[in-house]
Amino acid sequence: MKTACFDGKQMKYVQNYPYPKPEESLVKVNLAGICGTDLEILGGYMEYRGILGHEFVGTVKHSDNSNLVGKRVVGEINVGCNECDNCKKDLQRHCPNRTVLGILKRDGAFAEFLSLPSENLHVIPDSISDEQAVFIEPLAAAFEIKEQVSLNPEWVVAVVGDGRLAQMICQVLKLSCSNVTCFGKHQSKLKHMKKLSILTKIGIDSLSHQFFDLVVEATGSNSGFTDTMKLVKPRGTVILKSTIASRENLDLTPTIVNEITLIGSRCGLFKPAIDALATGMISVDFMIDSIYPLENFSDAIEHAKKSDTFKVFLKP
Amino acid sequence: MKTACFDGKQMKYVQNYPYPKPEESLVKVNLAGICGTDLEILGGYMEYRGILGHEFVGTVKHSDNSNLVGKRVVGEINVGCNECDNCKKDLQRHCPNRTVLGILKRDGAFAEFLSLPSENLHVIPDSISDEQAVFIEPLAAAFEIKEQVSLNPEWVVAVVGDGRLAQMICQVLKLSCSNVTCFGKHQSKLKHMKKLSILTKIGIDSLSHQFFDLVVEATGSNSGFTDTMKLVKPRGTVILKSTIASRENLDLTPTIVNEITLIGSRCGLFKPAIDALATGMISVDFMIDSIYPLENFSDAIEHAKKSDTFKVFLKP
Repeated sequence: MKTACFDGKQMKYVQNYPYPKPEESLVKVNLAGICGTDLEILGGYMEYRGILGHEFVGTVKHSDNSNLVGKRVVGEINVGCNECDNCKKDLQRHCPNRTVLGILKRDGAFAEFLSLPSENLHVIPDSISDEQAVFIEPLAAAFEIKEQVSLNPEWVVAVVGDGRLAQMICQVLKLSCSNVTCFGKHQSKLKHMKKLSILTKIGIDSLSHQFFDLVVEATGSNSGFTDTMKLVKPRGTVILKSTIASRENLDLTPTIVNEITLIGSRCGLFKPAIDALATGMISVDFMIDSIYPLENFSDAIEHAKKSDTFKVFLKP
Repeated sequence: MKTACFDGKQMKYVQNYPYPKPEESLVKVNLAGICGTDLEILGGYMEYRGILGHEFVGTVKHSDNSNLVGKRVVGEINVGCNECDNCKKDLQRHCPNRTVLGILKRDGAFAEFLSLPSENLHVIPDSISDEQAVFIEPLAAAFEIKEQVSLNPEWVVAVVGDGRLAQMICQVLKLSCSNVTCFGKHQSKLKHMKKLSILTKIGIDSLSHQFFDLVVEATGSNSGFTDTMKLVKPRGTVILKSTIASRENLDLTPTIVNEITLIGSRCGLFKPAIDALATGMISVDFMIDSIYPLENFSDAIEHAKKSDTFKVFLKP
């Protein structure tokens, strides 16, 4: 099959890459999304080698579950061992022996076909377009916050970052909390937030210091953590969404002195994300940027790296 | 009055230091404790200048509250502005304008007298000795964990560190959770923990990796955070108790990937600590090391710095 494969140094277009595992469901990829994590992997994160891509929508070609064959699906990206304590608690996302689609020991979606266990696949309704469906994986990560924190409707909430994940998080939090502010760097990116009655700010002024009950760090940049710690109230809660923020020389002193709760947050369950897109509760269309054929992956990656870009797609 | 005062470089014995604020309750210090934070301040932490010491027991000489005069008291160390939002919620500990006894803009307990607002003082029962009473401030910090986290009795709990605070934390957690392990470095220090049915370990073996639901970092050392992150289960909770751990080049990636909750924890309310000592629920006598006259502060500090020392006291 055709794919764009990463050898640890660069991505290369390969025409005759072996087909994925025959014992799993085989999915023909309709459309895949380029995510910030993909760009980090290309920069060395996770030391991953193989086919990248973990945001996709596709059509099931073969499966042990005959109800799935021919259906349009998205897929949860973590595959657990199904034997450890975490898997028994349905937390395959935290299985120590897990593989992760396009991230850890499992070929991903920048290819004609991928494979996943049938239990990872979710059939999506016709009301969700292919482009929208690619947002289900990151939208699930945004909904994960609601799994981890009991949101108080009275809370004054901030999201640091104006990228795709940040804007989905803003929308998810707005479902529970009326006062949500998005702190960004690009006026052009924040336009849609204003339409959704989400407050927007460029930069952090002194009035915002220690003002927020809940702050979500979703910048994907090194300065995000410092900004986040400025915004949160003593005894407030911080959600850490972007792994890149972890590489800085961090100072946890304010965390201790101000008794902040920091919560690391990663992948989420797909069900609430699918429901939210199907009912139009969350909008993602404004974040659709451009679609490239898979063989033009190189142009697509360069485009995705630009700071004012929303979602870039690859079509195998 | 006589005091040992810190000028930013060294502590000096001063015979005629001015008496503390006349508008507050005046307390004659019976006994003060040397804490790890004092040693950090002498090393530059908080850039504090003045009289150190925030663990004390004393006798009230003057007060606007006549019920306090002549009584033996301990005192909460944070003094708020009583006007900000935090003070109105009785969180003077988080007032942005606060002073802190012997730590921030307020002379401390290494002196003949100190002053605090009468509402900061707690009369202690005769059943608590002077030496025991000095432990009330750090014991309150241990009880603070119960204020912040709803402890599940089924949780498997670890405390990293074998110092005074760590051993009080072990005892406080043991009141709620049956399975508590203290990870230390000194076999001699861990003896008393064993008597209290607290498990003890020297060093971290691979069997302990990702084994604990709750881990408290109370080492006061730079390696404590790394060890703590090894011990905690995915989706587990970490309590950060020692500010020194914050100075390292920390990597928060495991926090995010494993969805750990990190909770900064500092000072606590005195009431549960006083009750626990009065009823003998928590034992501290085994941690009484030695008492020095205030003028011998220099020997006392050197003694307190040794790694196998428990609590060293100064008697004005």
